[in-house]
Amino acid sequence: MQAVTFDRVKLGGFWKNRFDINKAVTIPTVYDRFSDTGRFDAFKFEWKEGQPKKPHIFWDSDVAKWIEAVAYTVTLCPDKELEAVVDGVVDLIEKNQGDDGYFNIYYTVCEPENRFTNRMQHELYCAGHLTEAAVAYYKATGKDKFLRLMQKYMDYIEKVFIIEDSASFNTPGHEEIELALVKLYDCTGEKKYLDMSRHFVDTRGTSKKDEDSPYYISHAYDQTHMPVREMKDATGHSVRAVYLYCAMADLALRLGDNSLLDACKRLFRSIADRQMYITGGIGSTAYGERFTEDYDLPNDVAYSETCASIGLALFARRMSLLDSDSVYADIAETAIYNCALAGVSLSGREFFYVNPLEINLERHRKNREYYQRRDNLLTQRVEVFDCSCCPPNIARFIASIGDFLYTYDENTVYVHHYFESEAEFDGIKILQKTEYPNEGEVALSFSGMGGRRLALRIPGWCREFKVNGKSFDGKTVKGYAFVETGDSGKIDVSFKMECRLVAANPEVEADIGRVALCRGPLVYCAERVDNPVPLNNLLVSPELNASVSFDEKMNAYTVEADGFEDGSFDALYRDYKPDFKPRRIKFIPYFAFANRGESDMLVWIRVK
Amino acid sequence: MQAVTFDRVKLGGFWKNRFDINKAVTIPTVYDRFSDTGRFDAFKFEWKEGQPKKPHIFWDSDVAKWIEAVAYTVTLCPDKELEAVVDGVVDLIEKNQGDDGYFNIYYTVCEPENRFTNRMQHELYCAGHLTEAAVAYYKATGKDKFLRLMQKYMDYIEKVFIIEDSASFNTPGHEEIELALVKLYDCTGEKKYLDMSRHFVDTRGTSKKDEDSPYYISHAYDQTHMPVREMKDATGHSVRAVYLYCAMADLALRLGDNSLLDACKRLFRSIADRQMYITGGIGSTAYGERFTEDYDLPNDVAYSETCASIGLALFARRMSLLDSDSVYADIAETAIYNCALAGVSLSGREFFYVNPLEINLERHRKNREYYQRRDNLLTQRVEVFDCSCCPPNIARFIASIGDFLYTYDENTVYVHHYFESEAEFDGIKILQKTEYPNEGEVALSFSGMGGRRLALRIPGWCREFKVNGKSFDGKTVKGYAFVETGDSGKIDVSFKMECRLVAANPEVEADIGRVALCRGPLVYCAERVDNPVPLNNLLVSPELNASVSFDEKMNAYTVEADGFEDGSFDALYRDYKPDFKPRRIKFIPYFAFANRGESDMLVWIRVK
Repeated sequence: MQAVTFDRVKLGGFWKNRFDINKAVTIPTVYDRFSDTGRFDAFKFEWKEGQPKKPHIFWDSDVAKWIEAVAYTVTLCPDKELEAVVDGVVDLIEKNQGDDGYFNIYYTVCEPENRFTNRMQHELYCAGHLTEAAVAYYKATGKDKFLRLMQKYMDYIEKVFIIEDSASFNTPGHEEIELALVKLYDCTGEKKYLDMSRHFVDTRGTSKKDEDSPYYISHAYDQTHMPVREMKDATGHSVRAVYLYCAMADLALRLGDNSLLDACKRLFRSIADRQMYITGGIGSTAYGERFTEDYDLPNDVAYSETCASIGLALFARRMSLLDSDSVYADIAETAIYNCALAGVSLSGREFFYVNPLEINLERHRKNREYYQRRDNLLTQRVEVFDCSCCPPNIARFIASIGDFLYTYDENTVYVHHYFESEAEFDGIKILQKTEYPNEGEVALSFSGMGGRRLALRIPGWCREFKVNGKSFDGKTVKGYAFVETGDSGKIDVSFKMECRLVAANPEVEADIGRVALCRGPLVYCAERVDNPVPLNNLLVSPELNASVSFDEKMNAYTVEADGFEDGSFDALYRDYKPDFKPRRIKFIPYFAFANRGESDMLVWIRVK
Repeated sequence: MQAVTFDRVKLGGFWKNRFDINKAVTIPTVYDRFSDTGRFDAFKFEWKEGQPKKPHIFWDSDVAKWIEAVAYTVTLCPDKELEAVVDGVVDLIEKNQGDDGYFNIYYTVCEPENRFTNRMQHELYCAGHLTEAAVAYYKATGKDKFLRLMQKYMDYIEKVFIIEDSASFNTPGHEEIELALVKLYDCTGEKKYLDMSRHFVDTRGTSKKDEDSPYYISHAYDQTHMPVREMKDATGHSVRAVYLYCAMADLALRLGDNSLLDACKRLFRSIADRQMYITGGIGSTAYGERFTEDYDLPNDVAYSETCASIGLALFARRMSLLDSDSVYADIAETAIYNCALAGVSLSGREFFYVNPLEINLERHRKNREYYQRRDNLLTQRVEVFDCSCCPPNIARFIASIGDFLYTYDENTVYVHHYFESEAEFDGIKILQKTEYPNEGEVALSFSGMGGRRLALRIPGWCREFKVNGKSFDGKTVKGYAFVETGDSGKIDVSFKMECRLVAANPEVEADIGRVALCRGPLVYCAERVDNPVPLNNLLVSPELNASVSFDEKMNAYTVEADGFEDGSFDALYRDYKPDFKPRRIKFIPYFAFANRGESDMLVWIRVK
């Protein structure tokens, strides 16, 4: 199975709008904030003790992700000014790279004596992000300087970590380099980078050296608790976890390694079946930004980091290449349209690091200390964080969203997602005309199929679909409807898109007696700005009687549905006196919450 | 207002049964486990480094509370064998007390060089409990040796902490000595003990010395965040908090200190109105065994320590002496019959330290590590804990339960609680014939009233009551019905006792959409042993249609009520498909839970 990459896809509709905002607002904003905070200047290696804006251990990666976003953007939409900024950074990297190939701002400028001694300090994580950026920039522009610099760095890393085994640890404390090395291998064809990736993945959970490190935290926290092929449950820091699983899937595909694939399948199920918010958010606690226990999915203190949800989508996309089951694209879709998109404001200027499923401002105010202790549990998006991994991550994610659309082999073209778009790859052309995710109708036209079938993903949320206006009577396998096509032609697909109520497994204590309103792939929420009562006093009616209306700013439908309002009371406890008055409840897409000032917000609403 | 102490009250009925079990089983069991673990032998001061059973910093207090339980028990029911055990301990205390009066096992035997250096290590807490025990034992037996030893110790403490101010800290890290000093003052009439109590209370939150201590944790954790008269919210470790508030109330009463009384009222409301489980449990997190935020009352990870609930009842009892409002006796009643009583098994042999409002065994099993990290979140009572404060605390509490019954002044006798009992004090005799808490009828007969009225508490749970078979048409003030009596006579009071459903304030997220079934002062729960389905699949019907039947072993009624069973499902999320089948639900009193083997348990049940 082959991937169709974003550069083969011209976006329209919903995603073109997001791409344009990303280019016009997000990329410049992130650049400005990273400039203000000294992240770009740090590449000059001029910081001295006592000066402000001391370089931080992960600043290299922040800028790298921004460069990656620029690379994807200029691929689709050339921009010489943006390129010039990147070229400037690359020149500084060249200037300041060690003769041995080493490049890390913090460990050159601030703690040169401690190079490769502390596995928890993101040194190899930065190397990974710089490499991803270098590959992307080379593919976008053909300029190979950055790529060569990073190859030199990776060669040095090979020497230190593999040939000489002279570093103080064996496996990175924060995964990232593993998947970057696969990209470097794909780009250069040099097998040693694939071997390096496999080395870092296989060393995991088997190295005494890591455990003896004074910086060792816990086995499960950074996924060194066992060899990867034995893993059953997604554990620890959720971004680290899904980046590792991405690399494992990459290796399984390229090496035909079935034991690695089996582990990936188990880990995916551990997330999708037991540890994922309905929004595609993962990692339910701020304490360690990590997975906790199965079904432990609290809503108001949900961590659900933007980066983790992006990572989950990236993992799911890789799994689609390994196993033709629609569950992967379903989960990717959930993460993309809900948790990940919520990570950026509609304007493109502000970001959430943490994406709660409930905001109660009164509780926040009363217990400010408690919420602040739980890092970054904010009620409004901000332009930059001290730990600002999420803003450039969502920027590179949106810029390359076309990556998700298709995969193909000699027999079949898989249509995983429905985007207004034109794609061209390997002689095949596919046009999608659709208002998805707002409408379920998709008009596909295609040519150059060369005898291949189309496999249309039937979204997991869809209860009824038609092909060319009729019930589909062909073969459906693992969530894909297989349609025999001529070399060229047209197909109209229609996925019935209605408002529906979703319940969580009763094991999820936080959601008992509650439902989430969904429409198509979008999860909805109620905001107090639309419903001026305590949101936990609202109950939705199972009859719904929903009406939708299009909101230009959200570029999506809002929903009004039947429900009830329960009376409040002052005492801590009182005799139960149900006091339900009928009232309509307004819902907006979750991705659009907190775009109209501070407001209470609730995804899981009580049901009567 | 004067207290009528337990020694003036002869118990019958419900509490006589509990008193007998306490004497026959609990006191010997706690003795045996404390002997096994070396707590009694520790008083020999013979432990040497390298030997097992190293004395722990709070072992003095464990044994002291056991002695207190014995003292109260032998007051009502003489027992020379028990006295002999106490006399043996007292002899060891005499033998091993320092010439200066100091007595502490750990800081004499294990760390003699560190006396009075670490305020978090319970040294003054132990002194307090030993003093409470000495006072109780003197009053029970007339033997004054123990009392004199503790007076000598307190005189030494006065010298070190007040006269010379030579200790490394000023206020105890765990309150207890403050209320013990008031008891010592009451017993001996020596005003300096009252002054010492006031000193320790007044120094709180004003001493730089405490903050500079290397053992300082946080201001709020041990209630040193501000001077006590400024306190508004109950904060920090919940047992420490309520012990402090007890001392504040004691001082307010004896000193006529209204600013202290106002603070007590605010702190009481902070607990009763915003931070208390329906069972009278307080302190909602195991992390620090402490109060968290208003309305943060999770059920499955409730900490709700037995000692804290006992402390709340003790605080409430003191408040009844200061302010004739029935809310204090209401809260005391709630704590007594629910959280505190749940702290001991029906057999009297096993104990809960932590009293959850929900047990889900499957979740416990899956997430054992998580629950173990949260200390002592057990699903079954055990005979002893490493930190075994609760078992002797519940023993002394039950032995002196008569303390709660009455207070009086020249005009009025307040009947705060309804126990089958005969009381005699100050020439007054009051007989109560009642099956309370199982039935609401109380036949009171009295003599020697000397012109006093009776003030009958109308329980907060009661919606309808009658006096002598008729609606009460007299004066009711702050929850007490004032009845003019002759010098002697009879009154029949009847509080209508029905099963009822109680709702929590919607701010309590954990209880939204749920109700608790209550009957009289008893909170009920459902156990899976009676209802063999996942308890969160059950919904109670507001119509209830309840039937009760008496359970001999529980010495209380069980209840069956109408409800529904919701279907389970395997996926993490699915379309909402309500699937309610009618079924009766069985409830038992909360205090009786976990007495029939391991079982899921639920107080707050979904309501349809």
